[in-house]
Amino acid sequence: MLAGNILVSETDRADRTGGEIAENVRIAAVEARGDHMVLLWRDHPDGRRESRFHHFWLRGNCRCVECLHPHTWERTVDSFVIDPAIAPMEQSVVEEGAALRLIWSDGHETRLGAGWLAAKDYDGAGHLANKRPVRTWDAADLRAAMPEHTHDAYMADDAVLHAMLVDLRERGLAILRGVPTREGAVMDVARRISFLRETNFGVNFQVENKPDPNNVAYTALELKAHTDLPNREMPPGIQFLHCHLSEAPGGESLLVDGFRAAERLRADAPEAFDRLTRHAIPFRFVDGGEDIRWRAPTIALDPDGDLMEVRYHDALTAPLNVPFDDMTPLRDALRRFTEILRDPAMELRLRLGPGDLIAFHNRRVLHGRGAFDPNAGRRKLEGCYVDCDDAWSRLRVLERG
Amino acid sequence: MLAGNILVSETDRADRTGGEIAENVRIAAVEARGDHMVLLWRDHPDGRRESRFHHFWLRGNCRCVECLHPHTWERTVDSFVIDPAIAPMEQSVVEEGAALRLIWSDGHETRLGAGWLAAKDYDGAGHLANKRPVRTWDAADLRAAMPEHTHDAYMADDAVLHAMLVDLRERGLAILRGVPTREGAVMDVARRISFLRETNFGVNFQVENKPDPNNVAYTALELKAHTDLPNREMPPGIQFLHCHLSEAPGGESLLVDGFRAAERLRADAPEAFDRLTRHAIPFRFVDGGEDIRWRAPTIALDPDGDLMEVRYHDALTAPLNVPFDDMTPLRDALRRFTEILRDPAMELRLRLGPGDLIAFHNRRVLHGRGAFDPNAGRRKLEGCYVDCDDAWSRLRVLERG
Repeated sequence: MLAGNILVSETDRADRTGGEIAENVRIAAVEARGDHMVLLWRDHPDGRRESRFHHFWLRGNCRCVECLHPHTWERTVDSFVIDPAIAPMEQSVVEEGAALRLIWSDGHETRLGAGWLAAKDYDGAGHLANKRPVRTWDAADLRAAMPEHTHDAYMADDAVLHAMLVDLRERGLAILRGVPTREGAVMDVARRISFLRETNFGVNFQVENKPDPNNVAYTALELKAHTDLPNREMPPGIQFLHCHLSEAPGGESLLVDGFRAAERLRADAPEAFDRLTRHAIPFRFVDGGEDIRWRAPTIALDPDGDLMEVRYHDALTAPLNVPFDDMTPLRDALRRFTEILRDPAMELRLRLGPGDLIAFHNRRVLHGRGAFDPNAGRRKLEGCYVDCDDAWSRLRVLERG
Repeated sequence: MLAGNILVSETDRADRTGGEIAENVRIAAVEARGDHMVLLWRDHPDGRRESRFHHFWLRGNCRCVECLHPHTWERTVDSFVIDPAIAPMEQSVVEEGAALRLIWSDGHETRLGAGWLAAKDYDGAGHLANKRPVRTWDAADLRAAMPEHTHDAYMADDAVLHAMLVDLRERGLAILRGVPTREGAVMDVARRISFLRETNFGVNFQVENKPDPNNVAYTALELKAHTDLPNREMPPGIQFLHCHLSEAPGGESLLVDGFRAAERLRADAPEAFDRLTRHAIPFRFVDGGEDIRWRAPTIALDPDGDLMEVRYHDALTAPLNVPFDDMTPLRDALRRFTEILRDPAMELRLRLGPGDLIAFHNRRVLHGRGAFDPNAGRRKLEGCYVDCDDAWSRLRVLERG
C-alpha cells in the first residue's frame, strides 16, 4: 500500500519497486555503532523503539538514480561486492524525521525514507509483516458464505476482478456465474487476470470422456480429490473449470481445502505433519509422448513456516521410495491426511450447471468429481490455468492505488 | 531404459509408467516376515543379496489392469488407505525367477517383475540410482570441447536433437550454428523440444536496446552474469537466445557454470555454501503492469542433496531481510560466491554472430554480456524458454527405444 499522507518522505513516494511503505513513522535520531546504524523511531506503528541497519545494507539499497535504474527499477550498484568495511562519513535525520541521509567516503549520497526503512526493517521479530491472511474453510463455512461473482461484472469492473482475486488468495476459490457456454470463454476469464500457463495438456483442455484417454479425468470414472499435475516441478497455480454441459446423472464436483486439512493434521498429529513436509514423494505422468517426473513433499512450507502448497494425487504417485524404516511411518501419515481430506465435513459438493465456472488455487484446494453415466447424457468442462506469480502480481497492481 | 532380453518378465515389458527396469536380475526366493516380504536376489547388477518390500507397498503398486488404468497408466487402487495389516495369503517366485506372484486374502493377484522390483528397491542405500551425471565446467573445459550442433541437422535428425538434450542436461548448454536469422526461428528450435514457457515478457522476447526499458537487458548497459527471472517461483528452465544482428562493438556474451561455482564454494567454504542453501533471498520485478515477487535460496538442493538450482541476480534482489545476526554472514557468503562466479577462469566469453544460437539451463548456467555502443551498430537477439520438466521428458521419450 502506497501511503498518501504528509508523514511520508518524497523518497518513499517514488518507491515503485515492490516495497510496502509504512505510514506515519518518523526517525527521531540516528547513531553509528560499529558496522551498523541505530535508528530511534518516533510514532512507529508497532511501537518499536529502535532498529539496526548494517552500513553495507544501507549502501547496497541506495535508491538514487545511479544505484537504482530509473526506468527498470533494477539495482545497478554492485551490492554483493561492496567493501565490507564501508561506513558513512556523515549521517543525519532530514525531512522532519521522514528520511535518513547518509554521505559515503566517496561523496555519494544515499537518502532513504523512514516508511521504507520501517517496512524493510530486518532487526528482530518486530518488522512489519505484509502477508495477506489465509482463511481456511470446511464445507459448512463455504455453504454459509460462498465466494461468488457474476461473469459480466467480473469482465467489466476492476472492483469485481479485485474481489475475485482476494477470494482466490484468501479462500483459495471462487465461483463465477453466467459465463457464456462457448469454447474459449474460460480463457477470456483467465486472461482477465494474466496470460495462461500452458502444460502438456495444452493451453486449455476439454474435460469429457474420450476414447483412449491419457488421463483419468478424461473418463467417466470417479476422481478422488487431488491437486492437478503434481508430477510437474511447479504445478499450475489457479485452475479455471467452466461447465458447458452437465446432462449426465452424477459427476458432481468436490472441493476440499488442503490447507485446512493440513492445519488439522498439524494439530492432531504433529509428527505425521512433519513427515509430510520432509519426505519427497515421487510423481510421474506417462503417455505416448511424455514422461514427466518430479519429487516433492505432500505439504510444503514457505520460508516463514507457513503453509505454501499441498501436492496430493494418489493416481500419479510413483512407487514410494523413502528408506525402509521411514516407509511405514510415511504410509501412516499419508493415511491420516487422507482420512482428514475425506472427512465429509471437509468436502464441499456442488453440481455445476452450464455457465458455472469454478476457479481455485490448485496447489491448495483439492478437487474431484463423482462417477457419471456417459450413456445417460453428456458432461463437458473446459479448463485452463494461470500461475500464482501472475495472479498475485495482478492483485498487487490493482491495489497500487 | 526398457530391457530387451529374456531375463525380463513379461510384466516388466509392459511397464510404460516411467520406471526403469533393471536387466538381468532374478528372484531366487521369497519369504514373508512380519509386515514385509524378503526377496533373495540372483544376478543382481549391484551384487545385492536381498531386499525387503512392505506388504502394503506391494499391494498399492499392483500393476494389473484393475489397479493401474490400462490407458492412462494412472493408479486406480486407493493405495493410501490400504488396510495397514494387509498380508498376502500366498507368495511365490514365477517365470523362472523373473517375477514375484502374490495372492491377497480377497483373491486378488499381483504379479511384479524382478527387474521392476529391483529398480524400485527402497531398502537401504543399494537401490539402483538412475541419475544422469552432471558434468560441470570452467571456461577452459568448454574451449577444449564446446557442445555444438548445426541447425539443419538438429531440426531433421532425432539423434542430433538427442545429443543436444544430453548436452543441456549434462553440460547445461549447447550452441547451434546456422539458424536462419528470421523472427520466430528460435521458437521453431525450442518447439522441436516442447511447448514454450510464456512469461511476463511474452512467449518470445527481443533483446535490443529500447526506449523506456522495463529490464536492463533492454538497454546497452553491461549485464553481469545472472539467472533470468529469479523473482518467479519457478524461473524458466532452458533459455534459447538467437543472434540476428551483432554490428555494435562490445556486447560479447558471458556464460558461467553456476554448479561448478557452487561445487567450488562447497569445497572452499562449506559454511558459506550451507548459508546460501538455507537463507531465502527476496526477489522482485516491477513495472507498470507487474509486481512479481518470490523468496528462495541462492542454491537449491534436490531431495538427495545434489545441486538443483542456482538463483542469482543482484539487480532483481530486493533488500535482504534475514535476521540481523545472520545478515553479515549471509553478505560474506554472497560475496564469496560472487568472487567465484567472476573468476575469469570460470567465465566463458564468446561473441555471437548472426545465425548463432545459445541454449542453456537458466537455473544452472549464468549468462551476461558486455556493454555495447548502440550508436556504432545494432545488436539484436531473440529469445524464448522451455521448462526443464518438458525438456527432460523429451529426452526420456527419445531414449525409450
